[in-house]
Amino acid sequence: MTMMTAEQYEESLRKLKLAVYMLGRRVENPVDDPIIRPSMKAVAMTYELAQRPELEEIMTATSHISGRKINRFTHIHQSTGDLLKKSKMGRLLGRETGCCFQRCVGMDALNAVSIVSHNIDAKWGTEYNKRFLKYLEYVQEHDLTVDGAMTDTKGDRSLPPHKQPDPDAFLRVVERRKDGIVVRGAKAHQTGAVNSHEILVMPTLSMREEDREYALCFALPSDAEGILYIIGRQSCDTRKSEGGMLDQGNLLFGGHEALVVFEDVFVPWERVFMCGEFEFTGELVEKFAAYHRQSYACKVGVGDVLIGAAQIAAEYNGVDKASHVKDKIIEMNHLNETLYCGCLACASEGNREQSGTYCVDILLANVHKQNVTRFPYEIARLAQDIAGGLMVTMPSEKDLRSPKTGILIEKYLRAKSDVPTEHRLRILRLIENLTLGSAAVGYLTESMHGAGSPQAQRIMISRMADLEEKQRAAKRLVGLGDESPVK
Amino acid sequence: MTMMTAEQYEESLRKLKLAVYMLGRRVENPVDDPIIRPSMKAVAMTYELAQRPELEEIMTATSHISGRKINRFTHIHQSTGDLLKKSKMGRLLGRETGCCFQRCVGMDALNAVSIVSHNIDAKWGTEYNKRFLKYLEYVQEHDLTVDGAMTDTKGDRSLPPHKQPDPDAFLRVVERRKDGIVVRGAKAHQTGAVNSHEILVMPTLSMREEDREYALCFALPSDAEGILYIIGRQSCDTRKSEGGMLDQGNLLFGGHEALVVFEDVFVPWERVFMCGEFEFTGELVEKFAAYHRQSYACKVGVGDVLIGAAQIAAEYNGVDKASHVKDKIIEMNHLNETLYCGCLACASEGNREQSGTYCVDILLANVHKQNVTRFPYEIARLAQDIAGGLMVTMPSEKDLRSPKTGILIEKYLRAKSDVPTEHRLRILRLIENLTLGSAAVGYLTESMHGAGSPQAQRIMISRMADLEEKQRAAKRLVGLGDESPVK
Amino acid sequence: MTMMTAEQYEESLRKLKLAVYMLGRRVENPVDDPIIRPSMKAVAMTYELAQRPELEEIMTATSHISGRKINRFTHIHQSTGDLLKKSKMGRLLGRETGCCFQRCVGMDALNAVSIVSHNIDAKWGTEYNKRFLKYLEYVQEHDLTVDGAMTDTKGDRSLPPHKQPDPDAFLRVVERRKDGIVVRGAKAHQTGAVNSHEILVMPTLSMREEDREYALCFALPSDAEGILYIIGRQSCDTRKSEGGMLDQGNLLFGGHEALVVFEDVFVPWERVFMCGEFEFTGELVEKFAAYHRQSYACKVGVGDVLIGAAQIAAEYNGVDKASHVKDKIIEMNHLNETLYCGCLACASEGNREQSGTYCVDILLANVHKQNVTRFPYEIARLAQDIAGGLMVTMPSEKDLRSPKTGILIEKYLRAKSDVPTEHRLRILRLIENLTLGSAAVGYLTESMHGAGSPQAQRIMISRMADLEEKQRAAKRLVGLGDESPVK
Amino acid sequence: MTMMTAEQYEESLRKLKLAVYMLGRRVENPVDDPIIRPSMKAVAMTYELAQRPELEEIMTATSHISGRKINRFTHIHQSTGDLLKKSKMGRLLGRETGCCFQRCVGMDALNAVSIVSHNIDAKWGTEYNKRFLKYLEYVQEHDLTVDGAMTDTKGDRSLPPHKQPDPDAFLRVVERRKDGIVVRGAKAHQTGAVNSHEILVMPTLSMREEDREYALCFALPSDAEGILYIIGRQSCDTRKSEGGMLDQGNLLFGGHEALVVFEDVFVPWERVFMCGEFEFTGELVEKFAAYHRQSYACKVGVGDVLIGAAQIAAEYNGVDKASHVKDKIIEMNHLNETLYCGCLACASEGNREQSGTYCVDILLANVHKQNVTRFPYEIARLAQDIAGGLMVTMPSEKDLRSPKTGILIEKYLRAKSDVPTEHRLRILRLIENLTLGSAAVGYLTESMHGAGSPQAQRIMISRMADLEEKQRAAKRLVGLGDESPVK
Repeated sequence: MTMMTAEQYEESLRKLKLAVYMLGRRVENPVDDPIIRPSMKAVAMTYELAQRPELEEIMTATSHISGRKINRFTHIHQSTGDLLKKSKMGRLLGRETGCCFQRCVGMDALNAVSIVSHNIDAKWGTEYNKRFLKYLEYVQEHDLTVDGAMTDTKGDRSLPPHKQPDPDAFLRVVERRKDGIVVRGAKAHQTGAVNSHEILVMPTLSMREEDREYALCFALPSDAEGILYIIGRQSCDTRKSEGGMLDQGNLLFGGHEALVVFEDVFVPWERVFMCGEFEFTGELVEKFAAYHRQSYACKVGVGDVLIGAAQIAAEYNGVDKASHVKDKIIEMNHLNETLYCGCLACASEGNREQSGTYCVDILLANVHKQNVTRFPYEIARLAQDIAGGLMVTMPSEKDLRSPKTGILIEKYLRAKSDVPTEHRLRILRLIENLTLGSAAVGYLTESMHGAGSPQAQRIMISRMADLEEKQRAAKRLVGLGDESPVK
Repeated sequence: MTMMTAEQYEESLRKLKLAVYMLGRRVENPVDDPIIRPSMKAVAMTYELAQRPELEEIMTATSHISGRKINRFTHIHQSTGDLLKKSKMGRLLGRETGCCFQRCVGMDALNAVSIVSHNIDAKWGTEYNKRFLKYLEYVQEHDLTVDGAMTDTKGDRSLPPHKQPDPDAFLRVVERRKDGIVVRGAKAHQTGAVNSHEILVMPTLSMREEDREYALCFALPSDAEGILYIIGRQSCDTRKSEGGMLDQGNLLFGGHEALVVFEDVFVPWERVFMCGEFEFTGELVEKFAAYHRQSYACKVGVGDVLIGAAQIAAEYNGVDKASHVKDKIIEMNHLNETLYCGCLACASEGNREQSGTYCVDILLANVHKQNVTRFPYEIARLAQDIAGGLMVTMPSEKDLRSPKTGILIEKYLRAKSDVPTEHRLRILRLIENLTLGSAAVGYLTESMHGAGSPQAQRIMISRMADLEEKQRAAKRLVGLGDESPVK
Repeated sequence: MTMMTAEQYEESLRKLKLAVYMLGRRVENPVDDPIIRPSMKAVAMTYELAQRPELEEIMTATSHISGRKINRFTHIHQSTGDLLKKSKMGRLLGRETGCCFQRCVGMDALNAVSIVSHNIDAKWGTEYNKRFLKYLEYVQEHDLTVDGAMTDTKGDRSLPPHKQPDPDAFLRVVERRKDGIVVRGAKAHQTGAVNSHEILVMPTLSMREEDREYALCFALPSDAEGILYIIGRQSCDTRKSEGGMLDQGNLLFGGHEALVVFEDVFVPWERVFMCGEFEFTGELVEKFAAYHRQSYACKVGVGDVLIGAAQIAAEYNGVDKASHVKDKIIEMNHLNETLYCGCLACASEGNREQSGTYCVDILLANVHKQNVTRFPYEIARLAQDIAGGLMVTMPSEKDLRSPKTGILIEKYLRAKSDVPTEHRLRILRLIENLTLGSAAVGYLTESMHGAGSPQAQRIMISRMADLEEKQRAAKRLVGLGDESPVK
Repeated sequence: MTMMTAEQYEESLRKLKLAVYMLGRRVENPVDDPIIRPSMKAVAMTYELAQRPELEEIMTATSHISGRKINRFTHIHQSTGDLLKKSKMGRLLGRETGCCFQRCVGMDALNAVSIVSHNIDAKWGTEYNKRFLKYLEYVQEHDLTVDGAMTDTKGDRSLPPHKQPDPDAFLRVVERRKDGIVVRGAKAHQTGAVNSHEILVMPTLSMREEDREYALCFALPSDAEGILYIIGRQSCDTRKSEGGMLDQGNLLFGGHEALVVFEDVFVPWERVFMCGEFEFTGELVEKFAAYHRQSYACKVGVGDVLIGAAQIAAEYNGVDKASHVKDKIIEMNHLNETLYCGCLACASEGNREQSGTYCVDILLANVHKQNVTRFPYEIARLAQDIAGGLMVTMPSEKDLRSPKTGILIEKYLRAKSDVPTEHRLRILRLIENLTLGSAAVGYLTESMHGAGSPQAQRIMISRMADLEEKQRAAKRLVGLGDESPVK
């Protein structure tokens, strides 16, 4: 077996013994928890769509290890074509789930580690890459979902790891044993953590020698002894547990983030891919970040949903022919497709690394992500404009179902006479979900901070934009040029 | 008595017998309902601050009828100074409540009706203004909160009232009696409806002769027989009923909107201020809209809170000295103060109407509101940028209070060592509240659609901007000018 | 005589013996030089409009010294009403000239010096203010145009005045004599310098004790011995000397800037208003800057011209009914009126200084100017959008007048059949003039840097926005408040 | 010979007998005319760079007809790789010339005609494509520069061609002869017209049957009998004829546009590629427009120059370390690279047409161009911000060279002591050139209108964005989905 069905995936999760906490209680059965389940269903779509013949080219790939067909989420990119398909897969899944489907982080982590473990070995004669490839084979073989865990909790932002008042503010080795290491710390904002079979841990920033104990990369089963998950609250999260078919907006899917705590967890050496090689932390972060910034292709797909919803709302309200509404829909599409250009361009300009892995163009991936920190907010604003105020003032589903008030809501909130009032309300709740509700966490705030906050991209743009070449070009035109060659 | 204390206000509400529905049930005691109460407390601040001597100039005025000191919210503006103070009062209350304090709609309705009822009388020899002034005296005398009710439910947007499949899509007279009229219909998006003593109903658009039965303006006690309230859902509304001191963000205040249904309600003639004079509906809408667009001064105050919260979050995160953070705070302030300029300028350029009432400059009031449909979204985006991703991934208060997880949250979500973790979380929840949660309904979506959606302002800008004068000026400079005089 | 006519103004300039250089030659007669003359005509409009009865309220004021009617450009503001009228006067003149009319700098300098000279005297018992008032009386009496000269050439921006390799990089005292001082240095970017009767020199930045010799404020006749003017090039400047009625765009008016060099110029003590009081340099800069940032009210008037021209171009092209064109005109108006709000609001919120002079609200004046560094660029972009590409590809007037090509241009560049081709071309040339040509210098680049570059305003916004008050408000809402009182 | 050197190109132009008019006179020798010559030099760069081995991959291609190495500007794209290289070639040349290098229009026209002539033949059995391929071979063989001429003068925009008061408002057949056709009309805004060997004429809009006589595509030598060129004025054009090394900004290159008039010009049948097949006009316009919108890759290269110049200006001013300056440079780069993403993405997503030609993705090409109508304006604004006001107030080169004023300019306009004043001035003049001067025509106004004005792209975006698919996705998530398959 190298590819699971959605049902097999769900079953596989039931076997995990995760320590999950949410809203002040231990969640014994996350798979069936009404708040968590939609996020599991979103991951399940990455399995389901990979089964569809018409989507095979996008959703699957041929393993460069085993030569077998695998889910693209477990694939190491072998060409710019692979990178382009990754962007398209992201948009597709964003559009089909209308939320964060969570599985890209692991894919990006696998690819980044494939490059850097190779480079460490090349320098130090270690065997991290060999270990990693074995691990990769296991992941591909079992079609696992991997949580790529990078972001430490960081404590005081002005201090490096080794100077933190609490040494656990960054995840670290607390013991080195013959058979492995023991780690302590926590990773924040872990998307889809409790829907994952594996956690692949990476360092969160570029480190110096003094931070050696923090220069760590390893993998663990998600239910390893000592790992604990605390699920974060999302806007409107409890609406999912209210029952009903309306107020949650997206009836099918959702996302989640968790704080993942490692309470002295043992990692065997065969799952350790970096341990102390601080001088490679920067590269690992940079590569993972570049891949993951590309992954914000998914927001183009979520944007598709929001544009579609806004167009439906306009039609249901009877205003879709108004020129200002049409123009706003055009603007939403324009911004959304501009994002699409970014995730395609950084893929198209990708390069082969020493390990054979293809990596996206780092400058363009950062430029893409920077736009992702802006345009979804404007698309959301325009969607709210088109939706109208009812989106935030309409009564609850329970009022709609209640005999006394239901008849009044039916009567007074009907717009076009041939559109059932409830249809109108459902679409408005979806727009609410995407712009204020639980999906706004993914579409907006995660677009801002996921894969690095805006300033992180600006620093990279500053570093990667070749200012000297531009200055040479400008000087030549005003007669101040030396004769350095054109690049 | 002409001014109530906050406590007296609360008591006065308890005496009302309102028919309120929410989340599928009848709310017998809105004042103490955990979801509604914060909105009542916000209105109560309009009473409380009026008691403070240092705020007297802003919060109170001298009645032009009785000569007594009254709450400014019941005042008819007698000068541009009054209009300027209104803008300052809005900012002050927005800053002190961090939400919509609801009472401005009634003030704006009273002022608009004071002008138009006078103008109807001047044309038709009616006595609407006389009735209105008596009503006004009653409102001022008892320091009442008035819900200004304009927005009809509208049905099919492409049809005028009299052509709607359901004739009740706009509120209308269904019976004219000797002692009054009977009305039917509904008003949507009614801010603070159940915290009001009175409802002052106005028509929602400019009408023609065929819509005569819809050309209606009247006032009623909020608990008049046949009036029914269905409270709208807000993002994260039920967090208010969870108890606790954290997850709801704003611990003190909130807002609400309701669908207000008039099921064949009787209105005595002395409370009718327009009935059939369709040719004045346009003016009433335009005047009310202009006043109410000015009222979005309040969002400057809410912006103050959000800027303050972002600055605190930056300090708690230890990043407030970063130049990009400082620059974002500057940008937030810049946008916020640009909004302030708008609501001051339309006041400063206000004009005296025939009735003696001062009205804001209509062009500038529309320009102001148009900016309100844009800048709060950008301020919110920047606040989310500064806050960091934890704002949407942090665990619930119950997890913080729970022994097993609380200690881990305390440990790992601490940033600067001298700031208690809970303080950090509280500020982040406030930012969530303002940008995704229940206050985002007011700060964002209401900024978009309240007092008219963006396109409504653009139409007014198009009508009020004197293009001919600009064309004259341009032509003169290229030698195509006639000698029409400078305006 | 306290008010000159435009003709008297022109005559008065002819009497000046200015040392003017331009395009590599000495200009013996600036008044009649085809490149300079349009700028003189623009200043002349400040005299001409002051003669018109219907504009009296805006263009004139009553001197608080003599009690006589004076041109408002020589007035010291005595109320917020005066400040509001100043903003309106700026818009009016911008609209009537379509360019920079230059005279506001002197007005702003006079007002700033009126405040600070008073404050120096209050501290040090000097008699600067007495001297100044005498000077002011002279200016008012003769209705003079004053060049307010602040910006030094600055040399190395990283060094203070006294550390510059060239000590003359900032204007300074080189000799103190019994009867006066001798000064050396230069002031850059002096708007309308050669159209002025007087120069009022101020320091350019906040200084410390070591820069004492640079802490200077004084006035001189513009043709004082040792002052020399080098006129700056503007885009398309020489088109003005080509003759014709088309290619220069604005047929009537223009602006100019000059580098003004002081080659050891003597200043008698009665014209010295600060000499060494370094601790007041900051206040003088801040006050002048605030007044002058308000003065960018003029760009609203230039914006009026550009909007008018764009509307005419749309009509001549036959596209003015297209919804996207109408929407762009609305957006231009919206942005332009937003600027208007800024210059009104800072006036309306003005305050009385110790000297009795009214000063604008400094925060809002800076916010206003910050918007001026942005919106005119967007208005210009929209104007170019509406104008169409012909604006930059159309042949010269000489080709139009030439028999062979003229007939073809007439034929092929006609759009609507009832609009003469030349009318269309004239309007397009005006839009070119305002967005790329010599008026773009004023409408765009000067909007960026005049009265301080954008970052200067951001620093002021940062300093003036009361962050503590905002933080207090935010903390209170999350239960972290102390009981510090509301401001 | 299939590739000319720059020198050979210049010589080849000298042999043309063009009828060129400019500034009211006939230009006998355009190649050496100081105003036109820089534009010729820019085209010459397309020849010069093609000779450099290190640029061979970008600048040249292998002809699919002859199999020989040809200049890419004469190539028919055979793969998405070709399309990607086209985008890179555009950026390269934009960066090396700092202006419009003019030759892309012909390349885009050749590619569009290669597709559509094939499609006409497929429908009607004509032999347009055969003729075209012969013509193409000739162009490739002689390495010719072709002016792709689309934009008609259009007359009254509200009327189709056949209803125009002047029937020549659109170029048309006035006579059909045995050996060919006679055409009359004019093409406006023709970039680089007088630097071209050939003109390839296309229709300007989608036509109906009544406009059959206007449905025309043909090629002619640029000096064919009856063709006449009237060069358009550009901002600051005459500075190029002043001599000197400073005031013109870009010392090496420029661009030009001309009105090209066809006064009853004969076209032999072998050069006619469409004549009356009105139903293909829409496709030809759409394809050419898509290619040409991609070609705005060049503005990324011009943006490189402007960013380089701004960075140098910051360094020369001594402010390059200021955080706000660094941030503005980042923003300029970010916007510029976002444009780069657009022209890469539409190439990467290109498709093979029936003729074998590869065409860009039409939606993304339009999205790209839409951004080009916005971002260069913002980049230019930021460049002006960084440059400082001196850019528009500095004296002329003649003043710098003049003994009296030169020494003062040297002294007072020096910033950092180790940077010669003249270097500083040169860089500022380059920024002026690009943002207000003759290159601003290309970088700004041409970015707005070239290859179609913004609204043209919006219409295409509206048509190409698959709204139904987006609506399907949204409906499914709220339970309103049918089971239509995922695309």
